[in-house]
Amino acid sequence: SVNPDLSSERQTASFCVERLTALLDGGTEQTRIRRAVVEAIESDPVFSRENQYFQTQNERYEAAVRKAVHLQKKMHEMGWTENGPEYKYIYRALSGDVAFLLHRVFMRSISVLGSDKQIAKWIPLATQHKIIGSYAQTELGHGTYLQGLETTAVFDTATQEFILNTPKISAMKWWPGDMGRSATHTVVFAQLYIHGKCYGIHPFIVQIRSLRDHSLCPGITAGDIGPKMNFEHIDNGYLLLKNVRIPRENMLSKFCEVRPDGTYVRQGSQQINYFTMTTVRISLISDEVLTPLMKACTIAIRYSVVRRQSKLKPGEQEAKILDYQTQQEKLLPQLAAAYAFYFINDYLQELFNRGYTEIQRKNFDMLPELHALSSGFKAVITQHCTAGVEICLRACGGHGYSLLSGLPSLYTKILASCIYEGENTILLLQTARFLIKCFMAASAGQPVPPSVTYLAAVKHGKCPAKNKLDFLNPDIYTEAYQHVAVRLTSHTAAKLQDLIQSGVKKHDAWNQCTVQLVQAAKAHCHYIAVKNFAETVEKLETKAGIQKIMKHLCDLFALHGIFSNTGAFLHDGYMSAAQMDMVTASYLDLLAVIRKDAVPLVDAFDFTDKSLNSALGSYDGQVYQRLYEWAQRSPTNQMSPAYDKYLKPLLHNTLSKL
Amino acid sequence: SVNPDLSSERQTASFCVERLTALLDGGTEQTRIRRAVVEAIESDPVFSRENQYFQTQNERYEAAVRKAVHLQKKMHEMGWTENGPEYKYIYRALSGDVAFLLHRVFMRSISVLGSDKQIAKWIPLATQHKIIGSYAQTELGHGTYLQGLETTAVFDTATQEFILNTPKISAMKWWPGDMGRSATHTVVFAQLYIHGKCYGIHPFIVQIRSLRDHSLCPGITAGDIGPKMNFEHIDNGYLLLKNVRIPRENMLSKFCEVRPDGTYVRQGSQQINYFTMTTVRISLISDEVLTPLMKACTIAIRYSVVRRQSKLKPGEQEAKILDYQTQQEKLLPQLAAAYAFYFINDYLQELFNRGYTEIQRKNFDMLPELHALSSGFKAVITQHCTAGVEICLRACGGHGYSLLSGLPSLYTKILASCIYEGENTILLLQTARFLIKCFMAASAGQPVPPSVTYLAAVKHGKCPAKNKLDFLNPDIYTEAYQHVAVRLTSHTAAKLQDLIQSGVKKHDAWNQCTVQLVQAAKAHCHYIAVKNFAETVEKLETKAGIQKIMKHLCDLFALHGIFSNTGAFLHDGYMSAAQMDMVTASYLDLLAVIRKDAVPLVDAFDFTDKSLNSALGSYDGQVYQRLYEWAQRSPTNQMSPAYDKYLKPLLHNTLSKL
Repeated sequence: SVNPDLSSERQTASFCVERLTALLDGGTEQTRIRRAVVEAIESDPVFSRENQYFQTQNERYEAAVRKAVHLQKKMHEMGWTENGPEYKYIYRALSGDVAFLLHRVFMRSISVLGSDKQIAKWIPLATQHKIIGSYAQTELGHGTYLQGLETTAVFDTATQEFILNTPKISAMKWWPGDMGRSATHTVVFAQLYIHGKCYGIHPFIVQIRSLRDHSLCPGITAGDIGPKMNFEHIDNGYLLLKNVRIPRENMLSKFCEVRPDGTYVRQGSQQINYFTMTTVRISLISDEVLTPLMKACTIAIRYSVVRRQSKLKPGEQEAKILDYQTQQEKLLPQLAAAYAFYFINDYLQELFNRGYTEIQRKNFDMLPELHALSSGFKAVITQHCTAGVEICLRACGGHGYSLLSGLPSLYTKILASCIYEGENTILLLQTARFLIKCFMAASAGQPVPPSVTYLAAVKHGKCPAKNKLDFLNPDIYTEAYQHVAVRLTSHTAAKLQDLIQSGVKKHDAWNQCTVQLVQAAKAHCHYIAVKNFAETVEKLETKAGIQKIMKHLCDLFALHGIFSNTGAFLHDGYMSAAQMDMVTASYLDLLAVIRKDAVPLVDAFDFTDKSLNSALGSYDGQVYQRLYEWAQRSPTNQMSPAYDKYLKPLLHNTLSKL
Repeated sequence: SVNPDLSSERQTASFCVERLTALLDGGTEQTRIRRAVVEAIESDPVFSRENQYFQTQNERYEAAVRKAVHLQKKMHEMGWTENGPEYKYIYRALSGDVAFLLHRVFMRSISVLGSDKQIAKWIPLATQHKIIGSYAQTELGHGTYLQGLETTAVFDTATQEFILNTPKISAMKWWPGDMGRSATHTVVFAQLYIHGKCYGIHPFIVQIRSLRDHSLCPGITAGDIGPKMNFEHIDNGYLLLKNVRIPRENMLSKFCEVRPDGTYVRQGSQQINYFTMTTVRISLISDEVLTPLMKACTIAIRYSVVRRQSKLKPGEQEAKILDYQTQQEKLLPQLAAAYAFYFINDYLQELFNRGYTEIQRKNFDMLPELHALSSGFKAVITQHCTAGVEICLRACGGHGYSLLSGLPSLYTKILASCIYEGENTILLLQTARFLIKCFMAASAGQPVPPSVTYLAAVKHGKCPAKNKLDFLNPDIYTEAYQHVAVRLTSHTAAKLQDLIQSGVKKHDAWNQCTVQLVQAAKAHCHYIAVKNFAETVEKLETKAGIQKIMKHLCDLFALHGIFSNTGAFLHDGYMSAAQMDMVTASYLDLLAVIRKDAVPLVDAFDFTDKSLNSALGSYDGQVYQRLYEWAQRSPTNQMSPAYDKYLKPLLHNTLSKL
């Protein structure tokens, strides 16, 4: 039975939830396929995540391996293939709680970086799991700066082998998933040396564990890097190499080859490969970043209509906490952001598909823009969504702090996305570099890529809004965002030039502008996200009330951004204080409007109870029962392990006299 | 041997580290006592926290009980007493990793709320640990709103007993520490009923476990609430009461008594008791909130001068990451905030000591102000410090994400401080209510408490700064903060009045202003923190360079607040865009100045390696060695537990054919 405080929220939905779900999925057929996959996975007890919050790192790892192995069977049984329409839903249905993800990266890197001969040899072995692969790039001492990697691979002409070493402790490979305990092979990135000359970083296939008994191969030291904030199910590992010899054929050689005599040959274009690396940043957004925020919103919003605390009006029943303006102000902007980023993700996916087609036609013109967009949006979305999940967690008070709420693990997992696949600050600075370059080009009348043409049109106008309703006009707020992005970019470009002209060296000047460059890059992405949301709303079906509620969310997303960062819009007088007060008024009004549809808006995400794995967020809203029942199953609910040794002697005063 | 990249940072300190340490401790004698306590605790292997990151919840709990029991011996052995000068350093030296903290709360509540007879009976039992106490207030359904608690205590005149019940699932006590597995007794807060009439919440001593064998008493259901984001060492518990009868004498009756015939008598003044509850909020700031931020700063800053990544200048060695402006901008404001809040904590302690004296003299005038300050600062400091620890964690990239860095557990622990002892938003609204009331009074020419007299002097001036150096003048920035606090309070007061005058009901009007009321309360606390820091610097010894570096930190704290919240200062034209650019310039300049002393400034916090418990933050900066050595001891560094069952059959293809 559904908690009446929750079911009443559903009876007044202003739109059709099922249609919104289909819209998010990309059609009713997609919804059907997704639900079928989820049903198949969740009804299989091997994939259960029910005990996850009680398990140790060892137990989590073992379960993840069991699931990975079982998944092979399941796919065969269900007739799912890697190219089938179901495939993309499997990982999501498992909530990523499965091993051998790096095995897939291992295979992809061979496919992309390997010669045809290498592909023919290794891919079948990997596909049949006769080997288990990992991907060893990051070292103790180097993550972001790949050129600084210290592992070496020296070519020995005499034996036609590469000799691999991690010559210093900081050169030790550190973090690669599946490597700590599972992998038999890995792709090691190392500085290639031939006849004493360094040719830079290259990939090498290295066997690390015996295929017979899984013992470490000669010269290999490897193990698990120990406990982390999350990802207990993954055996992130370390790897030391001491004079490990591998045959010449093990250097992945689609783009570079070492001939038997030691001649180094570079062949083909690596650009498609760089592009592949860029797309990884985009591909992770959906499952690793958006899904956690959408789940957190679902949990926190459902809880906030079930939890009653204190009274809004004297003499009345205690109020649902979502009826408090402060609670709305915490949660509803996160909900709006989840939709905004869902739509920008669609936009990026489409752009990258187009880019891929162009690049296959050997047209590399889009690469810089795609790189800038993928870097910037990876940083902005991961940062925003991580903050959003944390807000949802805190907004649930004490119960949000229990692992059983599901929120702590969503937070500790999404937090990692701010760090992996490029640290966010570094990525934003790459976007900023592109912006500055394009701004200079545009100022000089040269053509620039589509996403930055707006930089050319520096306007010094003022915001034309006359009353608070004007701020519900997407043209008004989109232009405001554009204005800020242009201002921050042009001001920072000017500061940079001033510094250089005053004699500061170029790299010093750049460093002295980086705090502001980061702001400019964020403003650029924020502008595009707002513009894209507004355009998406424009194109939506006008039936079923969906366009209307999406328009409200778009307005909220835009106005929340202004309200939270008023200085950027006030700075040069683009907006006046009076206009900012209108923004605030419109923004606060919107909270009360969207609050009415808050539960239907998270219902539309269509998460099952099992996928939320939360005592606070279940569809039926029976929060307290679930917390109690679940807690009783905790391994801490046995007789105190300290009783005989400490509590009993203490209470009975048989402890050695103090 | 100290990493040369770290030791070089110490050679150029602009001030005497040891003198700053003494200043923070309150004198060299205090430093000596503190170090002696730390040394005694850390040299005792029973208190070791070395394995903490590897332990399960059960193991953590057992260790915490062991430490609590051992601490009794240790104190006796060392001659430490609860009233001695060492006492306040013990908990800090243990990093709070010890059981029976609620036993102390149990004792304090009896001392404060109990009659002399009750104190005489229960306190000796508790002191000798013949019983172990807990404190059962929070329920599944109620935390903040105490009046809403649902547990009942019905007086039965016939038997002279109270009959206690948790009549609904939401009435179940939930969260009390030490109650899940350890406590034999607890103080239960319940609605008192006599002859069918409710007299509100009262405290009752209830035995929950047998003193013979620790089994649950009749009518009691209790256990552990399961896994949380941190505090694995504490057995937070649940408690169901079913017709549990306790004698009339077990109601704590210093302020209220039930006579044998059921007559309810209220006696004495509870105000000193309310004051006690208020001071708890202040007393937790030092150990639970400031210490974690100071530790996080120590770890992140030391790591940032040891970690080298990428090149600032082409052709040079890779740069220390603290030399990047963006890294400085992440960490140094947190360092400045740690000092700012350290000093405001001193201010609050002193104020509360004065308040205590006044209240003992039956002068309760200071209570509203003290309540407003303790609420507001508890919220502002916990929020700021939690965000600061998170920034430190993220600023360490991948290594910050390892539990071995120490940062994740600092974060997950400090996060709880935003929730317990009053949820922050609720607390800020209590401060705001005081501000609005005082503002109205001041506007009407009535006297107001000292901390808010500034509200009376609404000035409509403009910031007089003419160049960026003017913003290093404390008068300039303190006044700016004051201006913003006044503006936000007065504007919100005006909005509130407008709404009420336009016919909106008072409680609705209040709710519609709460987002802005929270802003006003934060601005008030921020202003006081800046003013207090500036005044503290004023009074410092001018020798040994300490005043100078503290002045820089004070400037940074103030300017960072403006830089991060420019809109508040630009809104009504108090500052111009040109002035804001000066703020930015001065702020960024300061980063480079303070960066030089960053390591000495964290060294002055004087944390030992054992207390940091971090592979990144040790005094010698041997980061990579420590990570590697520590990881090798992880329980995940055994043969894969999945090998025989899953990996071997998979690799050897003996899994049942797919």
